[in-house]
Amino acid sequence: MKSPTSLELLTDALRRLPGIGPKSAQRIAYHMLQHDRDGALRLGHALCHAVENIHHCARCNTFTEDEICATCLDPKRDATLLCVVETPADQLMIEQTLTYKGLYFVLMGSLSPLDGIGPKEIHLDRLITRATDNGVTEVVLATNFTNEGEATAHVISEMLKPRGLKVSRLARGVPVGAELEYVDAGTIARAMLDRKTA
Amino acid sequence: MKSPTSLELLTDALRRLPGIGPKSAQRIAYHMLQHDRDGALRLGHALCHAVENIHHCARCNTFTEDEICATCLDPKRDATLLCVVETPADQLMIEQTLTYKGLYFVLMGSLSPLDGIGPKEIHLDRLITRATDNGVTEVVLATNFTNEGEATAHVISEMLKPRGLKVSRLARGVPVGAELEYVDAGTIARAMLDRKTA
Repeated sequence: MKSPTSLELLTDALRRLPGIGPKSAQRIAYHMLQHDRDGALRLGHALCHAVENIHHCARCNTFTEDEICATCLDPKRDATLLCVVETPADQLMIEQTLTYKGLYFVLMGSLSPLDGIGPKEIHLDRLITRATDNGVTEVVLATNFTNEGEATAHVISEMLKPRGLKVSRLARGVPVGAELEYVDAGTIARAMLDRKTA
Repeated sequence: MKSPTSLELLTDALRRLPGIGPKSAQRIAYHMLQHDRDGALRLGHALCHAVENIHHCARCNTFTEDEICATCLDPKRDATLLCVVETPADQLMIEQTLTYKGLYFVLMGSLSPLDGIGPKEIHLDRLITRATDNGVTEVVLATNFTNEGEATAHVISEMLKPRGLKVSRLARGVPVGAELEYVDAGTIARAMLDRKTA
């Protein structure tokens, strides 16, 4: 059997990207070779460089090229607040709201026992050390509002409350701009129970 | 302004892939760094290696790592038949049917004057040289059945027929397995006009 060609190796490697099947991989390979060799080369180098240089922040666990990430080192952030998110993408979304000036802890996932993701995989031991050692007074749980995210928030809450920390959770309710007719009943029920004095 | 991080460079580079927007690029970058660093490295090397090694076959214009591709060099192929396709993917599809044993010429596109793709860009000069110099007796036009593909087939046909070559086109008609009720009228009209004695 002959060894695979550069083109076959490239198509196989492209299939490792999430959401890319065999047809797409072939289409992308042909496209890059025919129309964007410069882009292909840039992507090739960027991938190798990223794998080599990017690891997790020793303090908040997000992706960074340094020992401690820029957010953790920023003296202007409020070190008494610690926001727990599932992914760096979630962290970015919260940053974009400009409503939060504290620090973060990135779980890099959520509890999902069926997939073998337990407390150790999402670094709950490190989170507890982080939350209790550095003058943190409030932990804001900003995991997703999915079953896994809610379970994760519950577990973290139960672990931190006995340690004397204030633990809060992002408010649930009707999304901004939503029409009630098109909002699901669970969300409206929650918003009704959590209603605020106007 | 600070220089972009490895992660930003990677996300930007991923956006060069066809069909990948900013959100997908970010999602892919995080996924590869968190769950498949080995795959990321493999893809990085495959891209660099492919760009460096893959070019066009001097005879049929398909992608190859050699001067002349394996198909063109195969002595078992029928050198009197030349099939013209738009892309290497189309060539692969025809190969998979196992109904064709001749050689190929890959245009790497189709005529599209509005996009600036004229006869030169799809190498029609090289096709004519190839079709008239090497004992070819029949040219099978297997460009797509789109407007661009049909126009391309027409132009090639008009160029080659005066040179004494037999020029044929893939048959048009109702797809195998199709129910007439769901086939478009244009296809049925064509199939009616091209009907064959049973």
